Amino acid sequence: METPIVTLLSDFGLKDPYVAEMKAVIMGICPEARIIDVSHDIEKFNIRMGALVLTSAAPYFPKGTIHVAVVDPGVGTKRRPILIEASHSLYVGPDNGLLLLAAQKQGIRHVFNITNSHYMLSRVSKTFHGRDIFASVAAHLASGSDPTDFGSEIQDYVIPKFAKPELTANEFRGEVLHIDDFGNIITNISAEDFEKTRIKDGSTFQLRLKGKITALKFCSAYGETPIGKPLALIGSHDFLEISINQGNASKKFGIKTGDQITVVLCKQR
Amino acid sequence: METPIVTLLSDFGLKDPYVAEMKAVIMGICPEARIIDVSHDIEKFNIRMGALVLTSAAPYFPKGTIHVAVVDPGVGTKRRPILIEASHSLYVGPDNGLLLLAAQKQGIRHVFNITNSHYMLSRVSKTFHGRDIFASVAAHLASGSDPTDFGSEIQDYVIPKFAKPELTANEFRGEVLHIDDFGNIITNISAEDFEKTRIKDGSTFQLRLKGKITALKFCSAYGETPIGKPLALIGSHDFLEISINQGNASKKFGIKTGDQITVVLCKQR
Amino acid sequence: METPIVTLLSDFGLKDPYVAEMKAVIMGICPEARIIDVSHDIEKFNIRMGALVLTSAAPYFPKGTIHVAVVDPGVGTKRRPILIEASHSLYVGPDNGLLLLAAQKQGIRHVFNITNSHYMLSRVSKTFHGRDIFASVAAHLASGSDPTDFGSEIQDYVIPKFAKPELTANEFRGEVLHIDDFGNIITNISAEDFEKTRIKDGSTFQLRLKGKITALKFCSAYGETPIGKPLALIGSHDFLEISINQGNASKKFGIKTGDQITVVLCKQR
Repeated sequence: METPIVTLLSDFGLKDPYVAEMKAVIMGICPEARIIDVSHDIEKFNIRMGALVLTSAAPYFPKGTIHVAVVDPGVGTKRRPILIEASHSLYVGPDNGLLLLAAQKQGIRHVFNITNSHYMLSRVSKTFHGRDIFASVAAHLASGSDPTDFGSEIQDYVIPKFAKPELTANEFRGEVLHIDDFGNIITNISAEDFEKTRIKDGSTFQLRLKGKITALKFCSAYGETPIGKPLALIGSHDFLEISINQGNASKKFGIKTGDQITVVLCKQR
Repeated sequence: METPIVTLLSDFGLKDPYVAEMKAVIMGICPEARIIDVSHDIEKFNIRMGALVLTSAAPYFPKGTIHVAVVDPGVGTKRRPILIEASHSLYVGPDNGLLLLAAQKQGIRHVFNITNSHYMLSRVSKTFHGRDIFASVAAHLASGSDPTDFGSEIQDYVIPKFAKPELTANEFRGEVLHIDDFGNIITNISAEDFEKTRIKDGSTFQLRLKGKITALKFCSAYGETPIGKPLALIGSHDFLEISINQGNASKKFGIKTGDQITVVLCKQR
Repeated sequence: METPIVTLLSDFGLKDPYVAEMKAVIMGICPEARIIDVSHDIEKFNIRMGALVLTSAAPYFPKGTIHVAVVDPGVGTKRRPILIEASHSLYVGPDNGLLLLAAQKQGIRHVFNITNSHYMLSRVSKTFHGRDIFASVAAHLASGSDPTDFGSEIQDYVIPKFAKPELTANEFRGEVLHIDDFGNIITNISAEDFEKTRIKDGSTFQLRLKGKITALKFCSAYGETPIGKPLALIGSHDFLEISINQGNASKKFGIKTGDQITVVLCKQR
C-alpha cells in the first residue's frame, strides 16, 4: 500500500504548539502517514488567503492526498465541520468557504457533514477543532476509513463569493485573494478565465484598482519589465497576478486581500 | 519495532541553519527516527514560553516520544545538560527550568546529568549544545541507549518558580507563561488548579492585572462573548487563558510573559 | 538501499504554497525521499545569506545528501540551472553563486548545466524554477539518475566575490555574509582562514567596521564577556562572527549583509 499523505494548512503560526499537537494526533492514529505543511502563516482569520494557498498547492500533490485546512473564526459556534471528496484530493476543515475554491477546481463529488464522534478525540474542546476533530478525522481517513463513515452527505455547504469572479461584456470583476511574501497581488481570476479576455502576451491592458485605472503589460516572466516596474502575469498559482519586478506591488498600489480588482476589457469605451 | 519520535523546540527561529543541523545530526545517528518540530519561534531566551509550549504539546505525542528543547541563555557556562525520564516522555535539554513544567505534569521518574562524551559530537562547541550534545543524545536514545548510559542521576535540578502558582484562601497568584500568536494570555494556573477556585462556567470573577482589577466572564469558547470583548477560559493549553474574542488580549491589557496575574477569590472583601 | 535525503533552502518564506509545491513534486517523483528544510527565511534575493546558511548546514548531513537551494532573482532570464557534484553532497539550483561557497568548501568535482527537459515538469513556468526544474531534478537524482544525465559539464560557472576573502600582510578583507536571528554578524572569513592570523583565544584584536576601528576580544563562548559586551569568536557556522553577549551586534554596529569587514593584523602600524 502507498504511504498516505496528509497536508496541513492553518493560520496558527509556528510559535505555538498547535501545529505540533495536530501532528501528534495524526501520528498517534496513523503512524504511517506522511505529514506535510502547506502553510501555517495564513493571515489570522483570512479565509480568502487560505483558500488561494490551498488551491495552488493541491494539484501538485499525489492523487488521494488528504488536505486539512483550518482558518476558522467560527470555531465553537454552529458552523459545521466538513469533509469534501473531490476528484483528485480529500479536504477536511470548517464549512466556511475555505475548502471550496480548491475542491471546486478539481470537481466536487460529495460533501459530508462530520458528526460521528467516534472519529474525534474523546474530549473535543470548543477552541481547537483543528486538533480535536480535523486532524483526527484526517488520520482515520489516512488509515482507510471511508468518507461516508464520518457523517451524512450535505448539499447546502457554504459557497463563498470569492469562488466566482464575474465576467460581463465590458469587464471582469474579481477580487484579491492573497498578497504573497514578495508583495505580489494574486487575484481570483484563473488562467482559464483570463484566456476568455483574449489579452495576449506582451500587450497592455487596463485594470481598475481602488477606483483608479492603471495600464499594465501582460508578461510571462517578472524579468520582462525593468526592475521596479509593474506588470501582470499568470503566476505560479495559476491565477492573474499583479507584480513589480523585484519590488512590492501590494505596497505600491495600497492593495490588500479582499479588495476589488477589475480587468477592463477592450470593448469598453 | 515502532518508529522512534524525536521532537524539537527552540528559540533559534527558522532563518538560520541551526534547526537543520540538529536534524542532520539526528538522521546521521538514527536514520529511522521521525523528527517533528514543536516550535522554533519561542521568544529569544524566554524559558517560560518554551516551558509552556512544551507542556502543552507533550501529552498529545505517543508514549516514549523524546523531546529536545533548547532555550539556553547559559550555553557554554556551567549550567548542566540534563535528561529527564518522565512517565510518558523523555526530555533532553539544559538544566534551567525549561523541561520541568512538562516533566512534572507527567510525573518525573529520574533526572540524569549528561556527562558521557561518547554520546556527544566529537567536537562540542561552546555556542551550540543543541546540535553538539542534545540532538546527539536524543538520537542515541532513539537508537535504543538507556537513560542511565548518559550520566549520573541527580536530585538538585533547577525547579523554576513558574512551575508553582500560589493558592491562598483569598487569591490565586500565578504568572503569564506565554502570549500566543493570537494575543491570548496564557497563565501558569492549570485547569486542575483552577477547579479549586470553584468558579463556574458563565460566572464572572475578578482578576488583578498590573495592579488593576478587571471583571471577566469565565467561558468555554471564545465566541461566548461579543467580538472585541474579553473573557477567561481554560484554553487548549489546559491552563487559564485571558482572551478577547477575535482580538488581541495581550495588547489590550499591556501584558507580557513573566507578568504577575492574580485570581481574586470570592471570599475576599 | 539507504533513504535518499533532499534538503530545501529558499527565500520563499512559509506563508505561500511554494515550499509545499516543491515537496509535492519531490514526493510525486521519489516517494521514498526524506525531505528536510534548511531554511526558507533567507532574506529576499540575498544570495550571500543563502550561501552562508547552506555552507553551514551541509557538512552535518550524511554523505550523498542532495541540497536544493533557490535564491534566484534572475529566474526566467538567461541564468543557467546547474547541478554541482561535490565530494560530500550534491547541489541543485541557479548558477548565481548561491551554491559555490558550500560546494567549494567540500571540493567541487563536476558542474553540470541542467538542460535535459525530460527531468523537468512538463510545463516549466518562467517564475518558479524551484518547483518546475530544481525540485524535479533533485527528485530524479534521489531516484538514482546520474548527474551526467541532466546536461553537459561546464567550467564557466559563476564564482562570487564573497567566496574569496582577501589576505594581505597587513589585513584580512572579508565581508558580512549573514546576520543571524540573534543579531550575530557572520563573515566570510572561515575558521581555517582566521587561524592564519595567529590571533589567540582571549587576546584582543582590531576590526575595521564601516571605516571605524573597534577592539574586540577573541573568545570561545558568548558568555566570556559581560552581558551587553561585544566579542569575536568562531561561531557554530565555522566562520568569524562578531557578537554581543545576549545582545544584538548587527543593530549595535549598524552592519548588514554585504558590508565590508577588515581584520587589522598585528603587523600593522
